[in-house]
Amino acid sequence: MNNPALAPVFNHIDKNRDAFVARLLDYVRQPSISAQNIGMDAAAALAEWHLRALGMTVERIETPGHPMLLGQLGDDPARPTILFYGHYDVQPPEPLEHWVSPPFEPTIRDGRIYARGVADNKGQHMAQILAIESHLAATGGLPCNVKFLLEGEEEVGSPHLAQVVRDHAERLRADLVVTADGPMHPSGRGTILYGVRGVASFELRVRTARRDAHSGNFGGVMPNAIWTLVHLLATMKSPDGRITIDGLADTVLPPTEAERAAMARLPLDIGAVLADMGMTRLDAPADRDYFERLMFQPTLTINGLHGGYDGPGSKTVLPAEAVAKCDIRLVEAMTPEAVFAAVEAHVAQHAPDVTVIRQGAMPPSRTSMDTPVAALLRKAVAAARDGAVLDIPSMGGSLPDHAFTRILGVPAFVVPYANADSANHAPNENMRIDCFLAGIRTGAAILTGLGNWTPGG
Amino acid sequence: MNNPALAPVFNHIDKNRDAFVARLLDYVRQPSISAQNIGMDAAAALAEWHLRALGMTVERIETPGHPMLLGQLGDDPARPTILFYGHYDVQPPEPLEHWVSPPFEPTIRDGRIYARGVADNKGQHMAQILAIESHLAATGGLPCNVKFLLEGEEEVGSPHLAQVVRDHAERLRADLVVTADGPMHPSGRGTILYGVRGVASFELRVRTARRDAHSGNFGGVMPNAIWTLVHLLATMKSPDGRITIDGLADTVLPPTEAERAAMARLPLDIGAVLADMGMTRLDAPADRDYFERLMFQPTLTINGLHGGYDGPGSKTVLPAEAVAKCDIRLVEAMTPEAVFAAVEAHVAQHAPDVTVIRQGAMPPSRTSMDTPVAALLRKAVAAARDGAVLDIPSMGGSLPDHAFTRILGVPAFVVPYANADSANHAPNENMRIDCFLAGIRTGAAILTGLGNWTPGG
Repeated sequence: MNNPALAPVFNHIDKNRDAFVARLLDYVRQPSISAQNIGMDAAAALAEWHLRALGMTVERIETPGHPMLLGQLGDDPARPTILFYGHYDVQPPEPLEHWVSPPFEPTIRDGRIYARGVADNKGQHMAQILAIESHLAATGGLPCNVKFLLEGEEEVGSPHLAQVVRDHAERLRADLVVTADGPMHPSGRGTILYGVRGVASFELRVRTARRDAHSGNFGGVMPNAIWTLVHLLATMKSPDGRITIDGLADTVLPPTEAERAAMARLPLDIGAVLADMGMTRLDAPADRDYFERLMFQPTLTINGLHGGYDGPGSKTVLPAEAVAKCDIRLVEAMTPEAVFAAVEAHVAQHAPDVTVIRQGAMPPSRTSMDTPVAALLRKAVAAARDGAVLDIPSMGGSLPDHAFTRILGVPAFVVPYANADSANHAPNENMRIDCFLAGIRTGAAILTGLGNWTPGG
Repeated sequence: MNNPALAPVFNHIDKNRDAFVARLLDYVRQPSISAQNIGMDAAAALAEWHLRALGMTVERIETPGHPMLLGQLGDDPARPTILFYGHYDVQPPEPLEHWVSPPFEPTIRDGRIYARGVADNKGQHMAQILAIESHLAATGGLPCNVKFLLEGEEEVGSPHLAQVVRDHAERLRADLVVTADGPMHPSGRGTILYGVRGVASFELRVRTARRDAHSGNFGGVMPNAIWTLVHLLATMKSPDGRITIDGLADTVLPPTEAERAAMARLPLDIGAVLADMGMTRLDAPADRDYFERLMFQPTLTINGLHGGYDGPGSKTVLPAEAVAKCDIRLVEAMTPEAVFAAVEAHVAQHAPDVTVIRQGAMPPSRTSMDTPVAALLRKAVAAARDGAVLDIPSMGGSLPDHAFTRILGVPAFVVPYANADSANHAPNENMRIDCFLAGIRTGAAILTGLGNWTPGG
């Protein structure tokens, strides 16, 4: 531990280990499945209770979906302000038959708590709450202002977050945003992520005739809906893995020197990746760096393609209808609007029979590794974990950090506390108790670190 | 009627109209669903009874599937010999809820008999049987030798026909083969088809990883099974509709002058075709003649393509598995074996991860329009129908005529008797009674015509 001021806080955390675990068990016992509207009000009330117990003022912000909670503790303009973001909603637990213990009956086995939402995200923002509580209990105060934003719609794409952030921009003003979400690096080392990819999902639908036809009677004269999609899709990405939609990647920012250096420091065992996934090779293009592909390149993934016969054996049918579902992962400085427009223009040009149906979207986000507060964060995470920190320029997936970086203009970081094998979104989601406690310590170290930091300094 | 010798035969047919219809009702009342092995033995016994009633000697030939019947009447080497081919099996009747009257309770409405198999093919080979019976009854004999080959597996791809024909080549020897199957031209004019396309069905299967992955966590590094198929398929056929599999079309024979002239004589209203099928355009290539595409060009049809998410909304999944089912329609002088080999070589070169699974296949068949017996046939069909005959060089679909043309070396013709809207393979299959009677007259005219013909003459 580099910072002796942390000793009493960490001591408090150690002594309250069992009580803190019990608090988490209690929290995850409450279902809160946003997609199915199960338990949402009770979960919001429970989260609000936990925030108020810290002494926070809390506003419950209603949305057309589920409510958000905006908590605040301290408003000294001379002190730095941190905004913690998290979400109290969880993924649906299905398939239930694969759970060893029921998803909403939290169970401890081998040092892990098993429950839906224990890692994603209740255990992680509960760790932030307990970090604040421990700091208050051990030192009698906080060295910074703390804000807390908890939403109940992250698992359904955060459809109202951007608007709420826009509407409450002044009250959300902060020097940095920290989100504890997602898994840590498999090495178990303290992890800071500086960005996320965005996403834009859409469907391609085509109907080439009123009905399916016989492949003998019409083969050669009736357009085939599946061929239409195949030929269209082939114009959108080349066999060597490059997206070929005009204008799509025009705004892509290449990695900075710092980001390149960070990628070069990340552990990587391609053989282990291949073995774990049962792959014989990586996707094309072979000449691009593994991490650059995951962090700094857009993707065009076909999530599903369905048309025509799907039964046993063969059927000589010529299908009149087919659908492809796709998502594009966005990187800085792409925008969903420009991406959708580029896809629509491309489809209109290459396959005017095909209809593009826009689905959910989320912009990307990236925070400079050189932003001053990043150094503070690295030091704090290292202090809580007795080890070097892994800087990950971006996650491959998506979180709504754009609401903070693009709308508020505040640097945003993801500092995950959950074990790498926490099985988010899957049966038997779990959080290791030692990771939970290390998360509380990390949250406390960040608060302490902010006490020694001057915004703009 | 050009031939006064036909008058007593046609008179007999007219007088026995109701009895002949009753015979057909009786025949189609017996289910004979080869794919589901329902009623096959009873149907074979019934067909055998009808052949024996003509005075034929009949052999029941067992196969690993359903039995075939080989009937013969007359063996005068000085007379021409005609072989009638047909099938006593029918398509499954499902979906049952779309039938106005039950599929195996034949019902007459508005001059049509509704029943599964009434057009495909029981009503058509029953017309041949009744033509022989009428000729015998009205004239006391036949001017030619008649053979009859009825199989019970046409609707499942005639898997044993070629071997049976090979094994019984001497007993099947004939001067021509006539099959009454499929629908007549929509104009209702007497129709003769000289060829059929073949077919070769196969699956393309690919698995790129052990399990599906998250499109954020693996998008850009894990190969996508659907993209693998899309890029492979795009190398197999160009967007302008040309098959691009090396060697596939090397053996394709262009139409002869006679065939081109016949195509040019066929009625065609592209606007009506588009309207009927609800299409806005024909398939590419636009520069090829409509009938040439259906008769003289191979096709590559994707019958089905399935992989990844198929539910509502979007799912950010990267699919590890996908399957495409395809069929290739073959034209002279392609062979299924060479086609499968070309596909396999192409796939091995362009997408070695993909497995080709061969399914059913049938060679094409074509009989020269200039073959001497064709003129006789045209004259006979015209005599029975009081009108000009439509020569159709080939049907787009497949029938096992190759067993006769390629194995026996005998010219084979399809002379359909069923109305164009007979709804083969669909609910409410039907045969117009006037078409059934005209079919009997046509069969009789063919027999009479053969009396004036000398093989090789």
